[in-house]
Amino acid sequence: MNRQQLVSLIRRKKSMLCIGLDSDITKIPSHLLSYDDPVFEFNKAIIDATLPFAIAYKPNFAFYESRGLVGWMSLKRTMDYLESFREEIFTIADAKRGDIGNTSQQYAKAFFDKQSSGFDFDAATINPYMGTDSVSPFLEFPDKWVVLLTLTSNKGAVDFQHLQKEGSKERLFEIVIKKSLEWGSTPSNMMYVVGATQASLLLKIRKILPEHFFLVPGIGAQGGNLEEVLKYGSIREGGLLINASRSVIYASDGTDFSIRAAEVACALQCQMAAFI
Amino acid sequence: MNRQQLVSLIRRKKSMLCIGLDSDITKIPSHLLSYDDPVFEFNKAIIDATLPFAIAYKPNFAFYESRGLVGWMSLKRTMDYLESFREEIFTIADAKRGDIGNTSQQYAKAFFDKQSSGFDFDAATINPYMGTDSVSPFLEFPDKWVVLLTLTSNKGAVDFQHLQKEGSKERLFEIVIKKSLEWGSTPSNMMYVVGATQASLLLKIRKILPEHFFLVPGIGAQGGNLEEVLKYGSIREGGLLINASRSVIYASDGTDFSIRAAEVACALQCQMAAFI
Repeated sequence: MNRQQLVSLIRRKKSMLCIGLDSDITKIPSHLLSYDDPVFEFNKAIIDATLPFAIAYKPNFAFYESRGLVGWMSLKRTMDYLESFREEIFTIADAKRGDIGNTSQQYAKAFFDKQSSGFDFDAATINPYMGTDSVSPFLEFPDKWVVLLTLTSNKGAVDFQHLQKEGSKERLFEIVIKKSLEWGSTPSNMMYVVGATQASLLLKIRKILPEHFFLVPGIGAQGGNLEEVLKYGSIREGGLLINASRSVIYASDGTDFSIRAAEVACALQCQMAAFI
Repeated sequence: MNRQQLVSLIRRKKSMLCIGLDSDITKIPSHLLSYDDPVFEFNKAIIDATLPFAIAYKPNFAFYESRGLVGWMSLKRTMDYLESFREEIFTIADAKRGDIGNTSQQYAKAFFDKQSSGFDFDAATINPYMGTDSVSPFLEFPDKWVVLLTLTSNKGAVDFQHLQKEGSKERLFEIVIKKSLEWGSTPSNMMYVVGATQASLLLKIRKILPEHFFLVPGIGAQGGNLEEVLKYGSIREGGLLINASRSVIYASDGTDFSIRAAEVACALQCQMAAFI
């Protein structure tokens, strides 16, 4: 999906909501466990119920890989199902990969080359620690996106991301952003992960990147403030994909889980609509 | 595998050689393509031929993920085969994961919890960018190891890893090392990736970490110097897992590929034996 299509989608649905499919077999409603593939049934119901309110879905690979081949089957079924709504949603492989050039080429095929891997995600989350050749192979796929880890929303984010460079006021996350702009990245092929728990920093990063999209995790279970994120981060073309995972998908653990998920998604979408 | 077992293994085989199974279907000998699972047949032949000379094997997940479910089947078969030599080899999941705490828990299960994922690797490569909670869940598994990215051997390593901290002579890779020591890591549960292409820096890192094991990529195809790595990095207990991937597994693309791989592995092991 290219930038223009993504912006149209945001305007049409009046939403910047991304739903994280961190689907954990130990947390899904117990009545689903009788299905052949409980995780897929859960995902399908969540997708069906939230589709009017969300513009993006982000399967978190760890929750599938932890179950081995069975998990990969669930992920494949989920992605095949998401692809049946191709015009209506943007898909993100939340896998946080990053390796030397020849290996990153293989990861890019894993997410973007359907003929090779069976997957055709629109975007993949990438870790910048290994630098340019860990990112550039992903940029060679037209209309695909790198979502680069920048300022994350977790406890450990302070360990290295805020490190200040000698002889400069810049911190590591700012240096990551500036360096990435030298790698052939544009507002049409790269987004940045900017955690909502650091909403005041959103404004700072928005000044460096006036046009780029940000993927914003951390609202909901991690405590980020949606209002602040919208205020400091949104631009005329939207410019945000705001992720909610646990607060939506585990809104209830009963048979009403998909209805409750839709309610939470709808409330989030309503707040977003005012800024679009 | 615990540290004592690893050290015994190194002394018994007089080797610190790790073979990287970066097995690419487009590069393996063409006569294997008639098999049901050519990549597994390739890996099995490489393992059989190099087992006398290697103490560790490191499947590079990207090369399997790029082929989707078929690739995961090859990886699972390869790991099942490696497990049949459990006493003789150390296994590393080269996957370079790293995410927020609840997600890293799932990745740890993916590599270390056989009941959940079918995999029972001894170690996994982890990216430090997201800090403490991205690493700590892996340390909760007894006799399992984190192999933390520190100073890598690729072109992009210079982009961020050498960044110098304000008011300090320390660079990011040194700060990663020192911080990781606060996370409950010990010489018995954490190793560090230290690229061979920066052999002079090995000595510096060895001074900070006199007892830890280093996983050293970059000899062979990437141009690192084995003699220097052994001289600057080895300790009384070995202290190194020196990886070779392409130079061993693609030593020939003919029917003699496994014999040629064994020759290259044997030559590397000979050089290492003098330091053990």
